[in-house]
Amino acid sequence: MIDQRLLPSEFQVVAYDDYREVAAAIRDMVVRGAPAIGAAAAFGMALAARQSSATSMDDLRVDLELAADVLGEARPTAVNLVWALKRIMRTAASTAGDVDDLRAAVLLEAQEIADEDVQINKRMAGYGAALIEDGDTVIHHCNTGALATVDWGTALGVIRTAHEGGKRVHVLVDETRPRLQGARLTAWELERYGIPYEIITDNAAGYFLRSGQVGKVFFGADRVAANGDVANKIGTYMLALAANDNDVPAYSVVPTSTIDLSLAHGGLIPIEERDGAEVLDLQKSGRAIAPEGAKARNPAFDVTPNRLVSAIITENGVVYPPFVDNLVKVVEG
Amino acid sequence: MIDQRLLPSEFQVVAYDDYREVAAAIRDMVVRGAPAIGAAAAFGMALAARQSSATSMDDLRVDLELAADVLGEARPTAVNLVWALKRIMRTAASTAGDVDDLRAAVLLEAQEIADEDVQINKRMAGYGAALIEDGDTVIHHCNTGALATVDWGTALGVIRTAHEGGKRVHVLVDETRPRLQGARLTAWELERYGIPYEIITDNAAGYFLRSGQVGKVFFGADRVAANGDVANKIGTYMLALAANDNDVPAYSVVPTSTIDLSLAHGGLIPIEERDGAEVLDLQKSGRAIAPEGAKARNPAFDVTPNRLVSAIITENGVVYPPFVDNLVKVVEG
Repeated sequence: MIDQRLLPSEFQVVAYDDYREVAAAIRDMVVRGAPAIGAAAAFGMALAARQSSATSMDDLRVDLELAADVLGEARPTAVNLVWALKRIMRTAASTAGDVDDLRAAVLLEAQEIADEDVQINKRMAGYGAALIEDGDTVIHHCNTGALATVDWGTALGVIRTAHEGGKRVHVLVDETRPRLQGARLTAWELERYGIPYEIITDNAAGYFLRSGQVGKVFFGADRVAANGDVANKIGTYMLALAANDNDVPAYSVVPTSTIDLSLAHGGLIPIEERDGAEVLDLQKSGRAIAPEGAKARNPAFDVTPNRLVSAIITENGVVYPPFVDNLVKVVEG
Repeated sequence: MIDQRLLPSEFQVVAYDDYREVAAAIRDMVVRGAPAIGAAAAFGMALAARQSSATSMDDLRVDLELAADVLGEARPTAVNLVWALKRIMRTAASTAGDVDDLRAAVLLEAQEIADEDVQINKRMAGYGAALIEDGDTVIHHCNTGALATVDWGTALGVIRTAHEGGKRVHVLVDETRPRLQGARLTAWELERYGIPYEIITDNAAGYFLRSGQVGKVFFGADRVAANGDVANKIGTYMLALAANDNDVPAYSVVPTSTIDLSLAHGGLIPIEERDGAEVLDLQKSGRAIAPEGAKARNPAFDVTPNRLVSAIITENGVVYPPFVDNLVKVVEG
């Protein structure tokens, strides 16, 4: 996988042969983005199957169960991680034959999760791109592109598809503190795709929305509750509030694997709080940004209430409110 | 003056003997904060009077007029700058005697502006501190402390006075991108005052407000229109929106010199857009935060509509809506 911590300065591909290294890579955000960590965890399971010295199906399934526990704890908020692990465990449960058949089946399922993700991204991108008008300026939060998925992207995939379809789109990329996925990763992707963009601070989004310069707001999601509350990268709530205050549509673009119908509302979604050092390790012209010994709080996600979400764009179509009725239809078909 | 660009790493006092250097210091943000740049401009005028080789009162007044033009253009949004220059020019117009009398009168008036600011800050801090409850956690935006004023502070002055009065206050200091006045300057001040604080990213304010952890939100202002619309450091609008969405009071703390009754609403306040390089010159672990050649937009202020402002705290009392009726009373007495 690409070590996303080093971008845009350095493009470095890292390889792992131990699932515990994959878990650490997810935790340390070598790889991030809900769909990408789902796929990474699935391949982590394929490694665990290969690493296991089990000679019986039962023993191999126990080893896989242990690996799923380790991988599942790497990050708590994105549901795709758990979703991918459950899918692998279902494969493990239903595969017949010997341990080598099971190892092969797990690898195949991981590959399928990855391949499907690209197809799913392109389908939702098609639905989303139809909502973009030629000449639109949009605000995009965090990174939801090829780096956050297996390829193509969710919210950024929508923008790519609109751009490739010949629509002129200008992207205001919010930098997405503290880890700057917008400034570092989304800008890097847009540069490669030739899509015009400008970086803004997160707190400037309201200025551009209020001055009528923005047509739409796009973001992904790490978990969507059954009522349409959206847990996503910190700052999404304030961005959606500002969009709403100015009658600008705010769209969450997600594969149905991100929708967790088991949770009635967003208040039940676990919100990861990461080390405050992530906030403080910036430098400005080579100088520290805070006094020595300063402490920081660092919630990595927030929950945007469904009333601020104009629509949820999935691979099975665009879902409008009331989400509590309509989400179940796209998830369960 | 203290070079605020170097804090918290370095405490360096710089002295100027040319008013054009003072104008440059205001423009480059060696000094910032609406009341502080008002006082700095007034002392700049005292330097201009001293620098002038005029031997007649009329010639000296012409030189002062020229200096006022240069200083007045240093930053467009904060009205205190223009307010202080006008006050000096009124002194210049009304002073009798010779050129040395006029030079002395301008210096005296500058000193009076500075001295008054401290008294005014303490008066408004008293009014504001009464609104803080023992045990409150508050969010504070940008820097509004001693560094932003002549001494004591506006919004931060309220917090200091509450703290000195024995109330326990915990401050969530938002970092205030792009120039990080919160993380760099407010944290530095709070550290010195012994007031407990934690730094948060600007985009995390909504999370803390929504989870019920915040009792009040405080910020200053660079200009308040007659209807109570508040132009202040970029990000204030989104912060006030999030406070409002969670029924948390949002207070703007300003001297009456910041209230511009000549402007009917905030849409008429000029908003400075600064160089995008200010957004991009951060580093993360020694690495660039954006791709080479990336561009950024950098509006330095935004306007918070009066409906999101719970009260405006001045040296003449706390002003509640309807601001269009009540602001004029505290300004004109």
